[in-house]
Amino acid sequence: MGILVVGTVAFDSVKTPEGEASDAIGGSATYFSAAASFYAPVDVIAVVGNDFPLDALDFLRERQVDISGLEIREGKTFRWAGEYAANMNDRRTTDTQLNVLSGFRPVLADRHREHDHVFLANLDPDVQHEVLSQSGRPGIVACDTMDFWIDGKREALQSMLNRVDVLIINDGEARQLVDDHNLVRAAGRILDLGPRAVVVKRGEHGATLCTEGRWFALPAYPVSNVIDPTGAGDAFAGGFMGYLARSGDTGVDALKRAMVHGSVMASFNVEDFSVRRLASLTADEISDRHDRFLEMITP
Amino acid sequence: MGILVVGTVAFDSVKTPEGEASDAIGGSATYFSAAASFYAPVDVIAVVGNDFPLDALDFLRERQVDISGLEIREGKTFRWAGEYAANMNDRRTTDTQLNVLSGFRPVLADRHREHDHVFLANLDPDVQHEVLSQSGRPGIVACDTMDFWIDGKREALQSMLNRVDVLIINDGEARQLVDDHNLVRAAGRILDLGPRAVVVKRGEHGATLCTEGRWFALPAYPVSNVIDPTGAGDAFAGGFMGYLARSGDTGVDALKRAMVHGSVMASFNVEDFSVRRLASLTADEISDRHDRFLEMITP
Repeated sequence: MGILVVGTVAFDSVKTPEGEASDAIGGSATYFSAAASFYAPVDVIAVVGNDFPLDALDFLRERQVDISGLEIREGKTFRWAGEYAANMNDRRTTDTQLNVLSGFRPVLADRHREHDHVFLANLDPDVQHEVLSQSGRPGIVACDTMDFWIDGKREALQSMLNRVDVLIINDGEARQLVDDHNLVRAAGRILDLGPRAVVVKRGEHGATLCTEGRWFALPAYPVSNVIDPTGAGDAFAGGFMGYLARSGDTGVDALKRAMVHGSVMASFNVEDFSVRRLASLTADEISDRHDRFLEMITP
Repeated sequence: MGILVVGTVAFDSVKTPEGEASDAIGGSATYFSAAASFYAPVDVIAVVGNDFPLDALDFLRERQVDISGLEIREGKTFRWAGEYAANMNDRRTTDTQLNVLSGFRPVLADRHREHDHVFLANLDPDVQHEVLSQSGRPGIVACDTMDFWIDGKREALQSMLNRVDVLIINDGEARQLVDDHNLVRAAGRILDLGPRAVVVKRGEHGATLCTEGRWFALPAYPVSNVIDPTGAGDAFAGGFMGYLARSGDTGVDALKRAMVHGSVMASFNVEDFSVRRLASLTADEISDRHDRFLEMITP
């Protein structure tokens, strides 16, 4: 079964304690599909400007990623720049240029409506609503969001949460969304907003899955050479949705196994700038790390 | 098999977002033995002033804790005061009065030398050295420390680490001890200092065990009503050493299982001020939560 992802393809300029990368390929849809492509066919909907070097996405095409839904508009590609603190967890956005992303109105083709798995990466909740209204009846819809929309478009976001199955969000955003410092309570309150499951990504501290009456938590895979955390959350979502699509199962136990796959993909992603590590990755490396990780978390 | 703990018995005054407690019973040896007593007999060595109400420790005596090694000196008991931030993770010490703790020189009786399990709670590394020099040949020695000694007595601390089997330390201290932000690398470097295993306590983010070539990590048990985190690290150590003493096993798999027990005991401890929750706790509650926790961490 295939996956539809609607998100961004972007140029990122990133500074971390380990170095920097300028105008590197980034964007939520890029990271997501690079990770998910190891598990299932992926269809991408996004927009770039005519300054974007399409051959930079050849590694995706060589896997199972269909990027024919990538709209190319006159103008410049979305650009983001940020800088990470010494702890590699806190980051500061130093520049955002929406460019062609402003006014992005995704249009789904017939084949996009057939996917049973849909991931709405971090975008304006109104745009996420539009995608859902155009989509068929997917078996599972997951979405991400960010502080900017929680602050600025809370109502649209909340009604959107009522239409999705899984919210994949980071810890700070989860606390902000329901204004509760305690993550256990916060996750419970988010469930009250509609989704069947909440995945809270905690960076180097792992990830937590909360469903009605059940709780599952994972530490992060230990990475000794963290180079650039950018995109780790989307790589997590890619491994998570990828596993669900491959297994064809959406029960709680499948969600738990999907968390392990998401953690593994995120752990690879942070080992280099941009999508370099995901681009060079092999299925054998994933399988090896998955097994090692399982051993590390099993008492 | 019994456990010897050398640490503090204290008065704590604590302010958290959930309330406050003044001159409540605290101290590392108190929290440790309250937790460990559910697993094995515990022998306490500590010092209090003649202002200390000994009947406050009756709940320990009623379990398997021998407090005849509690020295009562003319003067005031050690006092600590602190205040927790809204996130319940960051805390600020507002007052420390060493009182009878300054000049504390533990003297081991013959029966103390027979214990196969020894826990050196956070104390001056010179005092920890003295205890080790008096002890017999325990099968496993674990110790804790804090930023104050890492800064002020690094050499004594490092030579002490060469004499212990397990260092139980929090994440900030682990980073500080070897000056490395990356916890994976930091844990590896700590092993180079001598201990066979390092347990890194990460508060609400769980705990990690690092041994030569192996890594094991746990999330924290999800507590929705965190009232007071004081003593959680010592309660963790109590569950950890308690399980090892009960099982009589010190292999890596036993250390992993001990981590689960430590996490469970820490999770109870934070549910009320002082040792109140550990004092009211029952073996059935521990066993229930242990099983629920295992389910929460098993994919």
